[in-house]
Amino acid sequence: MDPLDGFHLYDTTLRDGSQQEGLTLSVADKLAVARHLDELGVTYIEGGWPGAVPRDTEFFARARTELDLHCARLAAFGATRKAGVAVQDDPQVTALVESEAPTVTLVAKSDLRHVTGALRTSGEENLAMVRDTVAHLVRLGREVFVDAEHFFDGFCHDADYTTSVVTEAFAAGAGVVVLCDTNGGMLPHQVTEIVEDLRARLEQAGHGQARLGAHTHNDSGCAVANALTAVRAGITHVQGCVNGYGERTGNADLLTMLADLQLKMGLDLVPEHTLEEATRIAHAIGEIVNMPVSPRAPYVGASAFAHKAGLHASAIRVDPDLYQHMDPRAIGNDMRMIISDMAGRASIELKGRELGFDLTGEQNVLSRLAGTVKQREAEGYSYEAADASFELLLLDEIGRVPRYFEVESWRATSQQLRDGTLETEATVKLRGTVSGTGTGQNGGASTGRAVAIAEGNGPVNALDLALRQALRDRFPLIDQLELQDFKVRILDAHHGTDATTRVLVRTAGADLEFTTVGVGPNIIEASWEAISDAYTYGLYKAGVAAPTG
Amino acid sequence: MDPLDGFHLYDTTLRDGSQQEGLTLSVADKLAVARHLDELGVTYIEGGWPGAVPRDTEFFARARTELDLHCARLAAFGATRKAGVAVQDDPQVTALVESEAPTVTLVAKSDLRHVTGALRTSGEENLAMVRDTVAHLVRLGREVFVDAEHFFDGFCHDADYTTSVVTEAFAAGAGVVVLCDTNGGMLPHQVTEIVEDLRARLEQAGHGQARLGAHTHNDSGCAVANALTAVRAGITHVQGCVNGYGERTGNADLLTMLADLQLKMGLDLVPEHTLEEATRIAHAIGEIVNMPVSPRAPYVGASAFAHKAGLHASAIRVDPDLYQHMDPRAIGNDMRMIISDMAGRASIELKGRELGFDLTGEQNVLSRLAGTVKQREAEGYSYEAADASFELLLLDEIGRVPRYFEVESWRATSQQLRDGTLETEATVKLRGTVSGTGTGQNGGASTGRAVAIAEGNGPVNALDLALRQALRDRFPLIDQLELQDFKVRILDAHHGTDATTRVLVRTAGADLEFTTVGVGPNIIEASWEAISDAYTYGLYKAGVAAPTG
Repeated sequence: MDPLDGFHLYDTTLRDGSQQEGLTLSVADKLAVARHLDELGVTYIEGGWPGAVPRDTEFFARARTELDLHCARLAAFGATRKAGVAVQDDPQVTALVESEAPTVTLVAKSDLRHVTGALRTSGEENLAMVRDTVAHLVRLGREVFVDAEHFFDGFCHDADYTTSVVTEAFAAGAGVVVLCDTNGGMLPHQVTEIVEDLRARLEQAGHGQARLGAHTHNDSGCAVANALTAVRAGITHVQGCVNGYGERTGNADLLTMLADLQLKMGLDLVPEHTLEEATRIAHAIGEIVNMPVSPRAPYVGASAFAHKAGLHASAIRVDPDLYQHMDPRAIGNDMRMIISDMAGRASIELKGRELGFDLTGEQNVLSRLAGTVKQREAEGYSYEAADASFELLLLDEIGRVPRYFEVESWRATSQQLRDGTLETEATVKLRGTVSGTGTGQNGGASTGRAVAIAEGNGPVNALDLALRQALRDRFPLIDQLELQDFKVRILDAHHGTDATTRVLVRTAGADLEFTTVGVGPNIIEASWEAISDAYTYGLYKAGVAAPTG
Repeated sequence: MDPLDGFHLYDTTLRDGSQQEGLTLSVADKLAVARHLDELGVTYIEGGWPGAVPRDTEFFARARTELDLHCARLAAFGATRKAGVAVQDDPQVTALVESEAPTVTLVAKSDLRHVTGALRTSGEENLAMVRDTVAHLVRLGREVFVDAEHFFDGFCHDADYTTSVVTEAFAAGAGVVVLCDTNGGMLPHQVTEIVEDLRARLEQAGHGQARLGAHTHNDSGCAVANALTAVRAGITHVQGCVNGYGERTGNADLLTMLADLQLKMGLDLVPEHTLEEATRIAHAIGEIVNMPVSPRAPYVGASAFAHKAGLHASAIRVDPDLYQHMDPRAIGNDMRMIISDMAGRASIELKGRELGFDLTGEQNVLSRLAGTVKQREAEGYSYEAADASFELLLLDEIGRVPRYFEVESWRATSQQLRDGTLETEATVKLRGTVSGTGTGQNGGASTGRAVAIAEGNGPVNALDLALRQALRDRFPLIDQLELQDFKVRILDAHHGTDATTRVLVRTAGADLEFTTVGVGPNIIEASWEAISDAYTYGLYKAGVAAPTG
């Protein structure tokens, strides 16, 4: 499929989205986000500004070998050449070329006040900068888009000049000129008027068929509506960010626009089965950038199709469609009644079946399990994100949880010595009682007791290493399990350092991938719980028999 | 001022807003919110549903004596009479009368499918219910508004029937009929078409001058735009909730609509000096309902006028108005520079000025500082969230960072003993070299050395307590500083427990509130850095002199 054929869904999460206060992306984060965006089926992924931001230069370098895009095309963002410099001699333009991105999106000033006040050059030179840079990159075989910065404000101030920037870009070979509401203050009726006016001018200038785009921000609360309005006025390229990330109040939310355009305005942007992944992808990206999806987010938020029980409840049962603006399954979300039915017996029975346990009719087990889940979630546990810990809970309830090891004691110490060096070590002692099968060097066949000590980067790392060492001889499979992800969340932050901590640990290896959870006022204790559960679960799922002693 | 004269700004935070998942309001909360809304100058405050919700009955009772409204009028929300019941005999209608609210807003079904499917009555009886209830309340001297529920969906399904509900309400004496997008899925162009169609029909029916309202939800991300669009189509009453609270994705954000209508569309809704309180009021209400204002909220959010990009900073210095869609002071907010690794010298100069340091022309200092920020952010530090740590960095650069204490060593140990009990303790040793002024029990005047030990809930808590104890005798002000918030982020989570950790600590007390940051592979080390910086910064800002020894 040639991306130029259809409508462009252009994602700028990795560039403009990362301007969001509090959002910082590593190169690995960026690669992970890009894979999700490609899976969603966006047309373009703007990866960053190579040459200006070192991390972005590295992103494009690694993308060449590590990013195997199936659908999306990678775009590098950059600026037109500097005033008074030949385009070939501008290192920033050279960096764009060297990024090897097939598409380059150039930001160009289109408000004369910014040209003279911020760039401190003339309107004429600015036009030459647009012309030279676009033509140069087109000559080198790049697809070139131009972001007309401050387009709407500029058009209101001096429509002739702003239009001349657009026509200059098209004349030099730009594939799209994107009308940017950089300060984000436009209202929908203004967008309609300005886009229609511009299109009439472009028609006269012989660029009536040229493709226009819209880049909107949410400063007046109208980012999505402004983009939709622009589409109705003839625009065929919209830019936005997943979950509405972006500088200040954020960019237009890409997934809201996608759902509105496809489900309500009839545009065919991504395959149906891909749109059904939208909710999952929004939340996955929220996890990667560590900025969770707002429960109130349109379409993909946890509350987007949630109904407080009461007035509507009985009517909803009769005909849910009367109470929702679309079928939530179309974007992978679901209608939900807010009556904490998550921990109800029915859902636990369903969950059990999902895990391979038939609990049909086991009302006592289901009731006890529902009670335990409710109580532990009140303490801060979260089983939604930790299937493995839920399964261990279930196994415990039916008396089938395997006991691979019993902990005698553990200790973790971090210290800064007089000379400034940091030292962290941990000791783990496992009892011998269950070790009938063990003959490890650390313990010995006579007692089966295992004592291990390890140094680490931090107390949790040291404890993890010590526990692995204590288990290794008995259970060599341990070496195949790797702790891949470690998340800490302070639950009651208002108690300062004296608060409850939740730790989620993701483990992979031996053809498994699973998450365990630990909770406690002490981060070390919570981590210990999640890690020791991870090894128990890993050994159990890999089919290792528990000692019978 | 007769509220019927001008445009209506109708707040439903206390009714529809409280449908938000996770939001529960006590009567005292409701009274406090109402006072803030009155101060803001809204025209109507919908207080709740007396007779249906016991708390709301109590709210209206207490409002009569405890709520002294200067500007707003109180509205009680309720439903039209039950099918087949005389209006005088409907206890729910009687409760509306007994609430003594001067205005009553009745919800009426206006979608025929809901009339037959949910109410299970006929279209004719539904019209009689509207007629009887409105006329009854008007006879009793109430101002009556009608919320036409599911108006837009109903109009699309059967415009004639839906219009007849509107005309029936006006004929019976309703002051406003409010067009409700109850399921929230409309797009702006649909709103325009439907409102224009309805107005033409009302013109024909002799209600061309009647007042229409709009009640919108954000399910398609267009709540605010849909209301503004309705206003352009002739509507003169908008309903919304502060901070966009509300069921599912929320109601239209009242303050965003107010600012758009007044500052961009030229309507004169509230006095200028009242609008300047909007940011404060939004945050005050967020505190009362325990659901903080999103930093990304238009106009009033903490990030709404925050700039991160180095790109813009130099130009912002020249003319801030080129980079903001309106003057943030008009709604009581402020422009703010965020220091990040994208920041160049210009933004550091601006940030310095914000903190009270004039670095104009200090090119060397600015360059070194920009370099340090860039390098440390690459290591994982984040100064955007940690102004205090940035200020310490700046003080360090100009040789003015105060040295209140020097650390000799520290140690934190967590352990689980054989009997299963958990123990955590920390030791902190401070050198005597800087303690010329200290005569504490822990150290003594001869050396000034301080040694303290403390137990805690976790290693960080124990270290914090030990450090406070070691500093207390020298600096009694320490007891006024409280660590209020503690955030942990694992930066390169894919290394499992062997990853970089960032800790943010918010400290308050002694009329200060600030955030410090610490980074390291060891969570204890990172926490130690953030905590010890917090005490240094707190003592410095409180004006405590550093020992000179």
